[in-house]
Amino acid sequence: MPENTRPQVKPIEYHDGVLRFVDQTRLPAELRYVQTRDPAEVAAAIRGLAIRGAPLIGIAAAYALALAARAGQNLRAAADELAATRPTAVNLRWALDRVLAASTGDSARAEAEAVRIHEEQVTADVRMGEHGAALVEPGATLLTHCNAGALATGGIGTALGVVKIAHWQGKRVRALVDETRPLLQGARLTAWELAREGVPYEIIVDAAAAGLIARGDVQAVLVGADRIAANGDVANKVGTYGLALAAQAHGVPFYVVAPASTIDPATPDGARITIEERDGDEVLTVASTRVAPAGSAARNPAFDVTPASLVTAIITERGVLRPPHGAAIASALAKTAVAP
Amino acid sequence: MPENTRPQVKPIEYHDGVLRFVDQTRLPAELRYVQTRDPAEVAAAIRGLAIRGAPLIGIAAAYALALAARAGQNLRAAADELAATRPTAVNLRWALDRVLAASTGDSARAEAEAVRIHEEQVTADVRMGEHGAALVEPGATLLTHCNAGALATGGIGTALGVVKIAHWQGKRVRALVDETRPLLQGARLTAWELAREGVPYEIIVDAAAAGLIARGDVQAVLVGADRIAANGDVANKVGTYGLALAAQAHGVPFYVVAPASTIDPATPDGARITIEERDGDEVLTVASTRVAPAGSAARNPAFDVTPASLVTAIITERGVLRPPHGAAIASALAKTAVAP
Repeated sequence: MPENTRPQVKPIEYHDGVLRFVDQTRLPAELRYVQTRDPAEVAAAIRGLAIRGAPLIGIAAAYALALAARAGQNLRAAADELAATRPTAVNLRWALDRVLAASTGDSARAEAEAVRIHEEQVTADVRMGEHGAALVEPGATLLTHCNAGALATGGIGTALGVVKIAHWQGKRVRALVDETRPLLQGARLTAWELAREGVPYEIIVDAAAAGLIARGDVQAVLVGADRIAANGDVANKVGTYGLALAAQAHGVPFYVVAPASTIDPATPDGARITIEERDGDEVLTVASTRVAPAGSAARNPAFDVTPASLVTAIITERGVLRPPHGAAIASALAKTAVAP
Repeated sequence: MPENTRPQVKPIEYHDGVLRFVDQTRLPAELRYVQTRDPAEVAAAIRGLAIRGAPLIGIAAAYALALAARAGQNLRAAADELAATRPTAVNLRWALDRVLAASTGDSARAEAEAVRIHEEQVTADVRMGEHGAALVEPGATLLTHCNAGALATGGIGTALGVVKIAHWQGKRVRALVDETRPLLQGARLTAWELAREGVPYEIIVDAAAAGLIARGDVQAVLVGADRIAANGDVANKVGTYGLALAAQAHGVPFYVVAPASTIDPATPDGARITIEERDGDEVLTVASTRVAPAGSAARNPAFDVTPASLVTAIITERGVLRPPHGAAIASALAKTAVAP
């Protein structure tokens, strides 16, 4: 295990044909593991958000494809089913393509490639965390959105990895945690991870962030990404764009922390990113209680797009990319990944 | 009843020494009325948000002071207790001062003044609604935050009054309703009012607003106000500031709809407005379900401040105030109120 990490929750583990994963919909009330050999069960878990977070979705899909190879299933059909579970995260297709290319019909090779994708993410998280922590001032309050932690990557996390490493370095950072409606990944998952690490945190409703930024209570905003376009536009959990606007208005750095696999060179800009619309019941129902009047309709975009012009830097395992983001991205993708 | 109105829910009614009010914490599940002769019970209802919305708080406090006069209580002490219930809304102190000045120890005069404050609000709502509806294009989608409707004023509402009048005028408007965490006044109360009126609406999580504004799905943002400073800075439900930033970024008009009583000439700018911090449990608990891990802390500012520079116009019963807001406000306050 690379330096600077502490034992993290393992949201996904693969041993000998069995995939074990945390059902994240149960947290923080219950840390419940599910074991399966069935790729369709993994697909259902991704669709239902038991497994979520762009990097983890990619890892889970890679393992699911290895399970499909073991079961002698048609890999291309299995990959298509897995790819269809969530339309926005680009890691999903990227990981599936890697396993497809590596397997050449051999399930051992498919497994080995899935394990490699997972291990690379663990290492990449530490790199990102170190790059990011170097940008964090001692005593800073860091605002986070959704969950970009261990539960989203299988490592220490992306944005939350930065917070953790800064904390381990003794920088006495604090976190402001957006609760992240509708599914409350901040209040449920990020708070749970920070509590385990002993990082001081306070939860806020998403709408409180802009006012607190205006009051000077936030020194940096750190978010993950579901897909980064070639020009640096970022699709991430709905609400990210509003945070970026507020950060910009008050000169607060806005950092996107994401592995290079999140960058999609085939997507020229944010306008071409498909935004997943999820079931309106996620909005109308809060923590399983129906709150809106009967007959109400809802819109439920799961993501929004933050233009590159609002992004101070994209922190990847290959380095910190600064504007102009398009050129920095092209140059980072041209590099061979730095050896771990 | 002024033209252009339809029967509205009556969140507060006073008859002969008895105040009847809707317990808004029970909506939309239950339309429950509370009757009381006790000013302390009204104070508790305001503190606990059974009665909420800046204009309605003022009206309720005025009636409560009339009840105190009937009961032969010390009016100054009763007014101080009522004024302390919510620190941000300026209508509260304004209404109490009117009743104190009018009563001169006579409970009939106190009652008459409270009734007058209530009736003036009903009339002011229609004026604001007409001024605002004139600015709404046919077919527009109007984004609202919190509840600035009948339940907030005792009339047709401020921001929601504009939506209703535009709807009654046949403009085929639609509403996008911010759910408004933590207490979900949008999903619970605004949705309930719009459903009763037959205005088509969709509920969204607060964090989705900026992305939908960016996509061009919103033609105007309409919000109420809890206090407007002399320079036009606006304190309103937390989340308002973020909406104003997003509206500005995309050239969407951002209208504040509020009666002149919301303007506090004694507050020079938004930095001097006291922002109420409410109990963190409102954040940690969603619709009565605890969502965050045990031991979590929360910050819960109830309001934020939107600078005048982001406000397209302040729509009052005395007219539509446009920048420079400070001068427009001074001139509007100098005018005698237009006769109903």
